[in-house]
Amino acid sequence: MTLQITLPKEKTVSLSREEMQHLYRKVRKQTEWLCAPLEIEDYIPQPSMDVSPPRWNLAHTTWFFEQFVLLGFQEGYEEYQPLYNFLFNSYYQSVGERWERSRRGQLSRPTVKEVYAFRHVIDEKVLHFIHRADESQWEKAEKIIMLGIQHEQQHQELLLTDLKYILALNPLHPIYNSNNADQKLQLSEKHTNGFVDVKGGNFNVGYYQGGGFYYDNEQPAHEVYINDFKIGKGLVTNREYMEFINDGGYESFRYWLSDGWEWVKQYKIKSPLYWEKIDGEWHEMTLNGFKPVNLNAPVAHVSYYEAEAYAAWVGKRLPTEFEWEVAARQFQPDKSVGNFQEDKNFQPVPLTNSAEAQPIYQMLGDVWEWTGSAYLPYPGYRQVEGALGEYNGKFMVNQMVLRGGSCVTPRDHIRYSYRNFFQADKQWQFTGIRLADNK
Amino acid sequence: MTLQITLPKEKTVSLSREEMQHLYRKVRKQTEWLCAPLEIEDYIPQPSMDVSPPRWNLAHTTWFFEQFVLLGFQEGYEEYQPLYNFLFNSYYQSVGERWERSRRGQLSRPTVKEVYAFRHVIDEKVLHFIHRADESQWEKAEKIIMLGIQHEQQHQELLLTDLKYILALNPLHPIYNSNNADQKLQLSEKHTNGFVDVKGGNFNVGYYQGGGFYYDNEQPAHEVYINDFKIGKGLVTNREYMEFINDGGYESFRYWLSDGWEWVKQYKIKSPLYWEKIDGEWHEMTLNGFKPVNLNAPVAHVSYYEAEAYAAWVGKRLPTEFEWEVAARQFQPDKSVGNFQEDKNFQPVPLTNSAEAQPIYQMLGDVWEWTGSAYLPYPGYRQVEGALGEYNGKFMVNQMVLRGGSCVTPRDHIRYSYRNFFQADKQWQFTGIRLADNK
Amino acid sequence: MTLQITLPKEKTVSLSREEMQHLYRKVRKQTEWLCAPLEIEDYIPQPSMDVSPPRWNLAHTTWFFEQFVLLGFQEGYEEYQPLYNFLFNSYYQSVGERWERSRRGQLSRPTVKEVYAFRHVIDEKVLHFIHRADESQWEKAEKIIMLGIQHEQQHQELLLTDLKYILALNPLHPIYNSNNADQKLQLSEKHTNGFVDVKGGNFNVGYYQGGGFYYDNEQPAHEVYINDFKIGKGLVTNREYMEFINDGGYESFRYWLSDGWEWVKQYKIKSPLYWEKIDGEWHEMTLNGFKPVNLNAPVAHVSYYEAEAYAAWVGKRLPTEFEWEVAARQFQPDKSVGNFQEDKNFQPVPLTNSAEAQPIYQMLGDVWEWTGSAYLPYPGYRQVEGALGEYNGKFMVNQMVLRGGSCVTPRDHIRYSYRNFFQADKQWQFTGIRLADNK
Amino acid sequence: MTLQITLPKEKTVSLSREEMQHLYRKVRKQTEWLCAPLEIEDYIPQPSMDVSPPRWNLAHTTWFFEQFVLLGFQEGYEEYQPLYNFLFNSYYQSVGERWERSRRGQLSRPTVKEVYAFRHVIDEKVLHFIHRADESQWEKAEKIIMLGIQHEQQHQELLLTDLKYILALNPLHPIYNSNNADQKLQLSEKHTNGFVDVKGGNFNVGYYQGGGFYYDNEQPAHEVYINDFKIGKGLVTNREYMEFINDGGYESFRYWLSDGWEWVKQYKIKSPLYWEKIDGEWHEMTLNGFKPVNLNAPVAHVSYYEAEAYAAWVGKRLPTEFEWEVAARQFQPDKSVGNFQEDKNFQPVPLTNSAEAQPIYQMLGDVWEWTGSAYLPYPGYRQVEGALGEYNGKFMVNQMVLRGGSCVTPRDHIRYSYRNFFQADKQWQFTGIRLADNK
Repeated sequence: MTLQITLPKEKTVSLSREEMQHLYRKVRKQTEWLCAPLEIEDYIPQPSMDVSPPRWNLAHTTWFFEQFVLLGFQEGYEEYQPLYNFLFNSYYQSVGERWERSRRGQLSRPTVKEVYAFRHVIDEKVLHFIHRADESQWEKAEKIIMLGIQHEQQHQELLLTDLKYILALNPLHPIYNSNNADQKLQLSEKHTNGFVDVKGGNFNVGYYQGGGFYYDNEQPAHEVYINDFKIGKGLVTNREYMEFINDGGYESFRYWLSDGWEWVKQYKIKSPLYWEKIDGEWHEMTLNGFKPVNLNAPVAHVSYYEAEAYAAWVGKRLPTEFEWEVAARQFQPDKSVGNFQEDKNFQPVPLTNSAEAQPIYQMLGDVWEWTGSAYLPYPGYRQVEGALGEYNGKFMVNQMVLRGGSCVTPRDHIRYSYRNFFQADKQWQFTGIRLADNK
Repeated sequence: MTLQITLPKEKTVSLSREEMQHLYRKVRKQTEWLCAPLEIEDYIPQPSMDVSPPRWNLAHTTWFFEQFVLLGFQEGYEEYQPLYNFLFNSYYQSVGERWERSRRGQLSRPTVKEVYAFRHVIDEKVLHFIHRADESQWEKAEKIIMLGIQHEQQHQELLLTDLKYILALNPLHPIYNSNNADQKLQLSEKHTNGFVDVKGGNFNVGYYQGGGFYYDNEQPAHEVYINDFKIGKGLVTNREYMEFINDGGYESFRYWLSDGWEWVKQYKIKSPLYWEKIDGEWHEMTLNGFKPVNLNAPVAHVSYYEAEAYAAWVGKRLPTEFEWEVAARQFQPDKSVGNFQEDKNFQPVPLTNSAEAQPIYQMLGDVWEWTGSAYLPYPGYRQVEGALGEYNGKFMVNQMVLRGGSCVTPRDHIRYSYRNFFQADKQWQFTGIRLADNK
Repeated sequence: MTLQITLPKEKTVSLSREEMQHLYRKVRKQTEWLCAPLEIEDYIPQPSMDVSPPRWNLAHTTWFFEQFVLLGFQEGYEEYQPLYNFLFNSYYQSVGERWERSRRGQLSRPTVKEVYAFRHVIDEKVLHFIHRADESQWEKAEKIIMLGIQHEQQHQELLLTDLKYILALNPLHPIYNSNNADQKLQLSEKHTNGFVDVKGGNFNVGYYQGGGFYYDNEQPAHEVYINDFKIGKGLVTNREYMEFINDGGYESFRYWLSDGWEWVKQYKIKSPLYWEKIDGEWHEMTLNGFKPVNLNAPVAHVSYYEAEAYAAWVGKRLPTEFEWEVAARQFQPDKSVGNFQEDKNFQPVPLTNSAEAQPIYQMLGDVWEWTGSAYLPYPGYRQVEGALGEYNGKFMVNQMVLRGGSCVTPRDHIRYSYRNFFQADKQWQFTGIRLADNK
Repeated sequence: MTLQITLPKEKTVSLSREEMQHLYRKVRKQTEWLCAPLEIEDYIPQPSMDVSPPRWNLAHTTWFFEQFVLLGFQEGYEEYQPLYNFLFNSYYQSVGERWERSRRGQLSRPTVKEVYAFRHVIDEKVLHFIHRADESQWEKAEKIIMLGIQHEQQHQELLLTDLKYILALNPLHPIYNSNNADQKLQLSEKHTNGFVDVKGGNFNVGYYQGGGFYYDNEQPAHEVYINDFKIGKGLVTNREYMEFINDGGYESFRYWLSDGWEWVKQYKIKSPLYWEKIDGEWHEMTLNGFKPVNLNAPVAHVSYYEAEAYAAWVGKRLPTEFEWEVAARQFQPDKSVGNFQEDKNFQPVPLTNSAEAQPIYQMLGDVWEWTGSAYLPYPGYRQVEGALGEYNGKFMVNQMVLRGGSCVTPRDHIRYSYRNFFQADKQWQFTGIRLADNK
């Protein structure tokens, strides 16, 4: 998938250079740690336009630092391999021609080993640059490097979701990682239902806390009016979603948006992505292997169309992105109890005791939550100047907003005002459902 | 194009039966009057999925009355020709199977004469039904008939835009109608630039006047908060739009949304629809024939992508649908000076003296104005029960809202809260641009 | 379908000018006579790339005479309407740009009436030219006019097959003509089975009789060696073909060429074109209306793939084009007992008494017979010089040869050496099956 | 590309078991030797439908032996990995469902190492089976094993042509092998022009020598009549082909078959596959790297359309497959001087002294020669019984015959009656041009 970058508009971070080196090293190493279980063959295929080969993810994030930091700030810098700009640029039109996105899986070379060598050379140079840059360079470079780090984190998530797609289509059912997620599958069913009331009125939304990193699409913070509403206390579970399937949810146009129904018919959709019925029992491919669907876990890998249809079937609706944000700010879900990348589950888990102790369940982590809001600029939004800022708003059409992060998002990457966005038919991310209702 | 119907949710009209007969007759006749200049051959072709043959429009609106009024209310009613339900149903899944939409132009029969006969028989029966229905029937049927009339008006607009498409692609350049639009082409240039300020705050939007007909997508009326903003006093003219073209607007990715840029490249878009450059001069096909582009008239037949790119090039933006509505309510543009279907121009015209006397120019009529709002349900929106209500909200994804009506919209069809909507790449309607800006 | 013209290489006809005028008039009138039952609406649609609207056929054959006779021989000739060359040129690249073939059904104008006017003006001029041309012109023009007449006859066949396609897809089942074919449907079943032996050896094939018109693809006549073989005495009937269907012929890959099996699966082919099963009984659309399949009539509208699969199922094969020609020359089937266009059946008929009296049944007329020969140039074949000759051999790849003419071919158009040719997946012509076998 | 197998119809080989083991070992090892220069990443991608990943080739040929020898003859044999039948079956419908051909490049697993392990286990078992099979088994198995060996040789050629495609599209221009082909590039130009006369008459064609292996499509040997003809003494060189390009060969419809011209326009073909013009000089990607086109070498990687157009431009034609065979039998070209796989050039080379000493040049090896004959069954051809014979003739439509073998064909694989065949648009094999002419 194209990582659709959005940029911070002003300097908001103030790490020391040592802190920045530390953070840089930590995030870059985490990416490689995530790849440790892979065979070389796993790095190569691109089974669909939306899925990039892991090798590509590794090289592209490195290209980002070379392009925007080393080439951007170091006079006379010579590219490691000039063709890599052609091969690993994702969509930056002002940086020149690009290898066609749909053909990333057609490349045999560079080898995986060569890509790691590229990473390590660039890492050395970036760390050295952080140390040596003069103050005027640093002032500008600092936020680009921070952006590169955030970009790397986004690609960690993509790497895992792309890898899941690659392994899942393979009839040999390769396992990425066996871990404690299995134990959580044993947990008894907890109560995830019910709604909580939220009082309406005028609210501030968007990034306004100050102090940390944010993307420009979270800005300007602004005022909105919201009616009273109710929001689901928990996420919709696989058990609940199966009732929709069993009730003929995929066979009746009644619940679906018109575009959604066309999509169901054209692609013969019958379940969330990765589900397969064997002898009457639903199984799913996970990064921990192929297993029976865990009824108590939140449903994942549903498109907006499915989320919307499910809500229509229940007689409810999805929250808007602002309802979600207002509820999140009000109930202050604790990020540390969320199921994120660092927890190494690599799949959503049933409600735990600590999550159940929250005022609202699993709002951060586990699955990205589809909202009923289209991805559009906030009032007063202005594009950043210059090369990197070139595309800030260019994805703001034909997509829906998701909130809250998932089980493969790095924990420190997420915040209440964070806006993710995908086309309404996309299933391959860890995307799930929280319902809302009118008062 | 599929007419995407939205329904009134409660009885809001109270015409007497005689008034309803009168209105019914008037609107149905107007449709046939619009077809008077056509040759039989003009009724048949379907040059693209979005364009329906005029014969189909004539039959489909009649089918609507037969299906929902005669079959719906008259016990034992026998269809005029049972296959017509198959051939002329547009998208009502609950009314049964349909002839594939993309194949409407493959039909040689029924003949045009047969379709007119069908119309006239159904008209007789509907008028008779209005007279004879008992009170309990009438209470329910009244709003369905009103809906059918509004539906017919929408199809008058579609008929003209579809016809324009059919005639425009023909190298013989057939003329639909020669009229006074030519005179208006001679008018001297008037000042259409500048912005007017609108003070922000909380506003009511949606249909709340009471008394008239409205669609359910205008409901519920609700409160929104809007920042201070500026809105363009006039519409963007062809002269202004040509500057964008001449400045390389279609050759630089910089101004475009990513999806828009893909669209430009894939379809090699170089101008609004119907424009053609001959010996260095832009010409356009109109319903009044093929002529040089009138520099002073509002630009029409631009997609959302083009509207958005033009605004980016100017350094402004499009208004949201609520900014548009708030401005319209505040400045109270006079419908009677707008350029509508009844004016028989069948194309947008330059600013007239009477239009220039308005506080804001050409806000109603001439061209539908793209807004920066996605077509989504209003807070608290609920689908209507029953067969007709089946699809109320099913188009609420992947489309953008347009406001204000066009030169082929019937004058009494439009109101401040009226929401039209199309996909972002559609050009074949009379769609234009009004800019907005932040305070 | 593109009429793929092949040209006579030398003057072989010697009609007097009066005879030529007579022939010209007769053939041109026959075309219009064939259109007499049509409604204007029937002339317009183009439901598939292979099918041209009847209006197009009428105009294109006229364009041919204007282009190659009037423009070709008359100095200072001014085109009737210059755009008609653009609109009605089929594929002659040297004659300039063309209206895209797939868009012939998108045109509303010229009207049918205007096309007839065009025909009549050109007819006058051609007849006048035949009268007035000087000898040197006449010597060259004579064979072009004869070619135009043959071309017109080919388009008569195309007009009827295209029209059948247009009417057949219409759920209203319009009838082109009601005629005596129905009576023939009543005929008792006759014996059509069995094979006749043909002794092998060296034979002359191709056009060598002298005296008449022929296409260049029948030339040079040349020598071939053929083994002893057997050829089916009759055509495969609908009854026989149904056994293939009932035996699961369309469900088993075993009988099919690999490309054929892909075709069956991709298009879900289950029967010859125009067949439809209603309550367990096969019906078919014909130019005489929609009726039960006549079991005793020859099967028609099968592709080469189907013909080949049927033969494989029986354990036989198709004849080569030279086996067919050798058998035809040897058994001398009588054209006058064949079922041709002039018989006004417009569909294949069961074996009649007079046909049964032939040494081999229904070899001329009724259906074009697929042969197992690819359409390739004869040894020593050379392209004709000049504009018309431009494309003589350009269709000689990826097509299979058919022989013998059909029920919509004009009787005097056919001869033993006549080669028709289509791609292996085409069904929309009247194409049928005669089997062959090894000795 | 699908290897389209054709089968021997009767036992014609009589190797001892030791000889068979020796041959089996030799051919299987040769395949792996060809893969020695590859990186693991090179085994995985499938850049087009026609190109299979090297890993797939290695596994598929092994599957063939497991399926048809071990499973076919050894009672109770258990498959090495049951899913491999699903993954590595190419097109044998009777052997069950298959992994979709277009998705061979989507598989990350099995790893290359696992595939080699599979090969080695099956090799042991096959060699053991050859030793232990009882006589009645051996009688049947012998020809299946020989077929498997021939099949492996065909896949060696495919492996190299597929690999060339994979490496050639990579902007990094990876080199497969550096070898003596470069020296041959230095050779002075030799005379390759001129035609030799061949006297016509009745000839036997097809496999009739006896004693060796042949495919069933070479049978039955049969009699044909051929006119006197001329055949090119040498192959068309790159120098000659460039003249066609420089003369506007790809820009004028005049030389092209209609389908060929559509292909040129649709795919914007401007040269043979793998050619690229840099600063006015034509370069080409080869298995020995990216270099200037060698003017004296035979042109390769041209489609039938290009071969036919080139011949039309010269005013000649292609030979029929029988003309080619008759000439080959008459002039007895020496296989040992041909440029085959064992010569390790992996590309066509200019005329050598020893090749120039032949009565006709480079007729065996270097490039497959397009003939003007469609791939059709020989008279009296009958399909083999049983599972393997299932598909013998199923490719006999829509393809053209090629003769003579190429620089990547194993030397002992080729013979005068050998028929290769591809669709007319295929360029990715080493395919070239020899002209013919009429007397």
